[in-house]
Amino acid sequence: MSNVFVFGHKNPDTDSICSAISYAYLKNEIGMQAEPIRLGELNNETLYALEKFAFEQPRLVERVSEEVSQVILVDHNERQQSAEDIGDVQVIEVIDHHRIANFETTDPLYFRAEPVGCTTTILLKLFKENGVEIPANIAGLMLSAIISDSLLFKSPTCTPQDIAAARELAEIAKVDAEEYGLAMLKAGADLSNKTLEDLMSLDSKEFEAGDHRFEVAQVNAIDVNDVITRQKELEVLMQQIIAEKGLDLFAFVVTDILNNNSVAIVLGRRADIIEGAFKSSVVDNRVLLPGVVSRKKQIVPVITEALS
Amino acid sequence: MSNVFVFGHKNPDTDSICSAISYAYLKNEIGMQAEPIRLGELNNETLYALEKFAFEQPRLVERVSEEVSQVILVDHNERQQSAEDIGDVQVIEVIDHHRIANFETTDPLYFRAEPVGCTTTILLKLFKENGVEIPANIAGLMLSAIISDSLLFKSPTCTPQDIAAARELAEIAKVDAEEYGLAMLKAGADLSNKTLEDLMSLDSKEFEAGDHRFEVAQVNAIDVNDVITRQKELEVLMQQIIAEKGLDLFAFVVTDILNNNSVAIVLGRRADIIEGAFKSSVVDNRVLLPGVVSRKKQIVPVITEALS
Repeated sequence: MSNVFVFGHKNPDTDSICSAISYAYLKNEIGMQAEPIRLGELNNETLYALEKFAFEQPRLVERVSEEVSQVILVDHNERQQSAEDIGDVQVIEVIDHHRIANFETTDPLYFRAEPVGCTTTILLKLFKENGVEIPANIAGLMLSAIISDSLLFKSPTCTPQDIAAARELAEIAKVDAEEYGLAMLKAGADLSNKTLEDLMSLDSKEFEAGDHRFEVAQVNAIDVNDVITRQKELEVLMQQIIAEKGLDLFAFVVTDILNNNSVAIVLGRRADIIEGAFKSSVVDNRVLLPGVVSRKKQIVPVITEALS
Repeated sequence: MSNVFVFGHKNPDTDSICSAISYAYLKNEIGMQAEPIRLGELNNETLYALEKFAFEQPRLVERVSEEVSQVILVDHNERQQSAEDIGDVQVIEVIDHHRIANFETTDPLYFRAEPVGCTTTILLKLFKENGVEIPANIAGLMLSAIISDSLLFKSPTCTPQDIAAARELAEIAKVDAEEYGLAMLKAGADLSNKTLEDLMSLDSKEFEAGDHRFEVAQVNAIDVNDVITRQKELEVLMQQIIAEKGLDLFAFVVTDILNNNSVAIVLGRRADIIEGAFKSSVVDNRVLLPGVVSRKKQIVPVITEALS
C-alpha cells in the first residue's frame, strides 16, 4: 500500500511518465512508500520507451484523493494540468521545469523548479544528492525523457545541463543516445493508429493568461502533411473543445521533428493575436512557424504575453 | 553597476537581509553582477548581526524596476510581500522556505523552496553545489539568520538540517552559536527605542486566504508585558491599518523568546475565527498562545485554514 502518489501532468508525455517512475523509485530507496501513477493514456513514444527498458505502464488513477492524502507532482505545477481533485490532497513536493502559475499551498513544501529542458535532468541531481545509485533501466527512462523533451537535443529548451545528463545516463543505460533517440521519436511520430480525437488530446495543455484561457496541443510528425490534410475535420473537433472548455484560443501545433519547424491551426475568438504575436501570416486558420518546436519556450510565453 | 538585485521581503528580518547579502556574494563569485538590497528599515536584531560581522546595511531601494530588469527573491515568494513594482521586473530565481502563493511567471525559472527553518540553510547547499567557499563573515550572517528564524533552535520550524547547518556555519564563523545567538535575540527584543508604529511594522506580513486578506505582525520580547500594557494604543493603530488595507483580520503577536509562548491582539471583522482556530479564549481582543512561536508554522496555516 502506497502512502504517496507521484505523477506528471494530464495527457502525459514521456517526461511526465518517466519522471514519475524514476522519482518514485528514488523515494522508495530512501524510505518513502511512493507509487508512480498516470493521469491519462500514453502516447506511442512513451510506450516505446517503457517497452525498451522493460517497464509496465503506471496505473491509471482518476481520483487521487480516494487513495492517498499526499502527492508529489513532477513535470508540472499548474492546477489545471494536474489531477481533477488536486485540491483535496496535500502536495508535499514538486519537481518541475516549467513556468510557475496557479500553484498555491498553505504550508511550506519542497519545490524544485529549474530552467532546464527536462525534469529528469533535475532528478539526476536528486539521485546524486541523496546518494542513490541509478539502475540501468531507470537511467534509460530518464534518458528517454530528455530525448523526448529536447527533440534529440535540437529544441531551444535544451541546455548544456540536459546534454551532459543525457550523456551520463546513456552510459549507465548502455544505449546509443542518437540511434535509440531517433527510433523513439519516430515511434512517437507514427500517427497511423491515431484517431483525430487522439491527435487532439495526445499532448494538449491548458493555460491561463490574465482572464484568458487557452490551450495548445502539439503532435510530432515525420511529415506534417499527414496531419494537415485533415484540417477541416480537426477544426470541427477544435471548435467543440473551445465551446466545452470556454477557451479564448486553441492552437493545434504539428511539429516536423526532422526539420524542426511547426505548422499550427489556430481557432477561437482571440485567434486574432496570433499573426502579430508570431509575426507570421495566418491563412485559412493556419500559420507557419519556422524554427518553432518548443511549446514551453516558443509558443506559450508568446501567447501569454499577447493575451495579457 | 549591478544587473540583478537580490532581496528578501518587506519589513525585512534577519533571514531576509542575511540571505540577500550571502546569495549576492555567491552569485558574484560565479560571475553574476548582483547587489543585495533591502525593501525597508532594519530591526535591532539584524543591525546587531551586521555590526558583529562588519557588514554595512544593504541599500534601501523603493522601486527596483527603475534600476534593473531582473531580480532574485530570497526568503519570500508572495507578491504582496515583495517590492511594490515586482510586476515590472523578471524574477529569475527564488530561494525560499515558505508556502507558495500569489506567485506566477511567464517563463521557467530557478525556484528552490525547501521546508526547512531558514533560507540560509538552503544557501549553504547552494554554496556547496557551486563549489564556492564561504568566508567567515558570510558564515556569521548565515548563522545569524538560522538563529533568528529558529529562535535559537527552539521553534517548531527548526529542522535537523537547520541545526546541522548552524553547527557548520558557527565553526566557519568561529563563534559560539548559543552565546552569540542569545545576545543577538536579546538585542532584537530590546524594544526600548521603538515607537508603537515601529512595533506594528517591524516584522509584519500580509497574506491572502480565499477572498480574505489578513496580516500577522510579530515582535519578540523578553517581557511581553512591556508591549501588552500598551494594548489600547496599539489597537488604535491596528484599526487604522485594517481600514487602510481593507484587511479582514489583523493579529499582532508578541512572542516571549525566553519561555517560547506568545500573546496576540486580534482585530478585524473575521477575528471571530481565532477562538475556534486556536482553541483558546479571546478576552478583551487578546488571546494566549502557549507554545506558539512560529508565524509560518503555527499561525498562518491555522488562520488560512479557518478563513478558507
